[in-house]
Amino acid sequence: MPQHFIVIIAGGKGERFWPQSRAPRPKHLLPVVGSKPLLTQTIDRVKPLAPAKNIFVITSAVQEKAVRAVCKGIPAANIIAEPVGRDTAAAVGLAAAIVGARDPQGIFAVLPADHVIHDNKSYQSDLRAAFAAAEAEAVMVTIGITPTEPATGFGYIQRGKEWRAFNTRPVCRVKRFVEKPKQAVAERYLASGDYMWNAGMFVWSVPVVESALAQHATELDTALKPIRAALAKKRPLAGVLKKVYPTLPKISVDYALLEKSTNVVVLASSFDWDDVGAWPAVCKHFTPDAAGNVSRGIAVIEQGANNLVFSEGKHLVAVVGVDDLIVVHTPDATLVCPKSKAQEIKALLKQVESLKDGAKWL
Amino acid sequence: MPQHFIVIIAGGKGERFWPQSRAPRPKHLLPVVGSKPLLTQTIDRVKPLAPAKNIFVITSAVQEKAVRAVCKGIPAANIIAEPVGRDTAAAVGLAAAIVGARDPQGIFAVLPADHVIHDNKSYQSDLRAAFAAAEAEAVMVTIGITPTEPATGFGYIQRGKEWRAFNTRPVCRVKRFVEKPKQAVAERYLASGDYMWNAGMFVWSVPVVESALAQHATELDTALKPIRAALAKKRPLAGVLKKVYPTLPKISVDYALLEKSTNVVVLASSFDWDDVGAWPAVCKHFTPDAAGNVSRGIAVIEQGANNLVFSEGKHLVAVVGVDDLIVVHTPDATLVCPKSKAQEIKALLKQVESLKDGAKWL
Repeated sequence: MPQHFIVIIAGGKGERFWPQSRAPRPKHLLPVVGSKPLLTQTIDRVKPLAPAKNIFVITSAVQEKAVRAVCKGIPAANIIAEPVGRDTAAAVGLAAAIVGARDPQGIFAVLPADHVIHDNKSYQSDLRAAFAAAEAEAVMVTIGITPTEPATGFGYIQRGKEWRAFNTRPVCRVKRFVEKPKQAVAERYLASGDYMWNAGMFVWSVPVVESALAQHATELDTALKPIRAALAKKRPLAGVLKKVYPTLPKISVDYALLEKSTNVVVLASSFDWDDVGAWPAVCKHFTPDAAGNVSRGIAVIEQGANNLVFSEGKHLVAVVGVDDLIVVHTPDATLVCPKSKAQEIKALLKQVESLKDGAKWL
Repeated sequence: MPQHFIVIIAGGKGERFWPQSRAPRPKHLLPVVGSKPLLTQTIDRVKPLAPAKNIFVITSAVQEKAVRAVCKGIPAANIIAEPVGRDTAAAVGLAAAIVGARDPQGIFAVLPADHVIHDNKSYQSDLRAAFAAAEAEAVMVTIGITPTEPATGFGYIQRGKEWRAFNTRPVCRVKRFVEKPKQAVAERYLASGDYMWNAGMFVWSVPVVESALAQHATELDTALKPIRAALAKKRPLAGVLKKVYPTLPKISVDYALLEKSTNVVVLASSFDWDDVGAWPAVCKHFTPDAAGNVSRGIAVIEQGANNLVFSEGKHLVAVVGVDDLIVVHTPDATLVCPKSKAQEIKALLKQVESLKDGAKWL
């Protein structure tokens, strides 16, 4: 019986939730929703699916220390820091190598660290079905999120014919992956019922991933060899990662493997899901006041509606006569931004970077 | 020759420049414009007009400590704290008593502590003319500010016939004082050229003020007697003020004395003047960037125009995609308010007061 493993991808640049998020403390290290960091919530959510020794977290060097601090109960050796970011194909290749060293037939789920999911029971049940599917045949199982709106910020998975069912959950062949669509296209996708959001959640076996790497991502596959060799000799990974990682191609697992493979299947999620992509998305996870304002910490809102006002510590944030505004105070930086302009935070941070000692706020 | 005295009235509740201003640190204790607190700027401005021993500051108990800290060069005994606020008539009565104890024929100017004036030479020259007028005859000299716009936030002084000239400056009889007018009325006042803003600047002799008190404000005059008695016996004032002040009628000097007197004259100011009534008025004293933004401290403004962004300390305030907004960060509180809503800060502070330990932010 192959063992089950969970690999949580905890990366991200920490821009979209600035100033709470920073490069060394991105979204998954924050309690954006709930009282624990999203990474901790993710770990708690997957614990019933695999023993702690089979749960891995792949993060980046700059976040490593903070990640370790919130990964209570996970063996220290299971937290792996990428020296530089090389997108998801490299992370999946690394994950396959690590899991393969433990169980060459092992099955592992790749899961993002920073999504908000409340219905843990359905999540676990869906993942168990996905593990069963990946164990039954040499397929790449994607978890497709049932769309609730014509979102243009996600890639979509078009399902084909039903393939098999696991734990009573139907699993379909994947017809194709599509990039973030335009609004009109997204509306067609939603109406058709055949499209699901690609949330970056995959379940597959080590042999399936390694065979796909060998077939579709030769450069990456070759480059990963020294890592596999180090793992085989039970050498510490840090040194080899530092050497190998900068040479890895920077490519997403979607491009590198999934879009090129024919053995991809999709299981439609039955759990609630939100990637909480930026500040405005936070509001729906809070109970607003009568005027639609959401606040956390010491905040006063006078004559204003639908604002998000967060303050850390004993600092008072007082807002008068504004609507639909985001105000986030942290001890060393404050953001003021209309909800409609949240995507401009990146441009703002370019300016911050150019300040004297600007990096300290990033 | 009667001596000249200056009495600076340094009161105020500290609401309109919240959160920089607080009850114990109102506007005149802040460098709202310039690098020194407005009170210090006022003291520097009047120093050529009277020796330091003849300069007095009347403040409130809650502000006393902070006021003393910025009144360098003024004798400690010349800083008098009112135990409770009793409006300007009481302060003028107290001032007359204090000045009268030093020189029964003394002439004194009553001047607000929190106005912004750049042209100190003209200010001093105007005040010298006012002193000369108050010395020449038993008149109450008001300094009328030549209006530059149809402001509805000030009381107006209507001038009558020219009375005399001092230092080549014409001084007119006052026809009447009028309350803050409606917009249309203010426009008529401005067009007529006969109206000036009442900025609360007065020059008069002790006998003139005491005779007006005796004639028009009997209750106040009687209540002030124990203070005069204490001064005559050179007793410390604190005790008697604490006893007498709560009993004084709360009334402005305009109502109590000026509007009822027939010996009031007005000298039209020749200096620039701004009472900087609230945050939006601060902007015109700063050099804006190309987009009309004014900032102080560490501030970044992306895609925004005509904002005022102030930050204290090493805290970064970052503003994206907003116009005409006031953002003021202090170590324990931050304000976000459109310029058009600055008058709502009072309502906001009512809410702040109702917070747990709310008083600490006031």
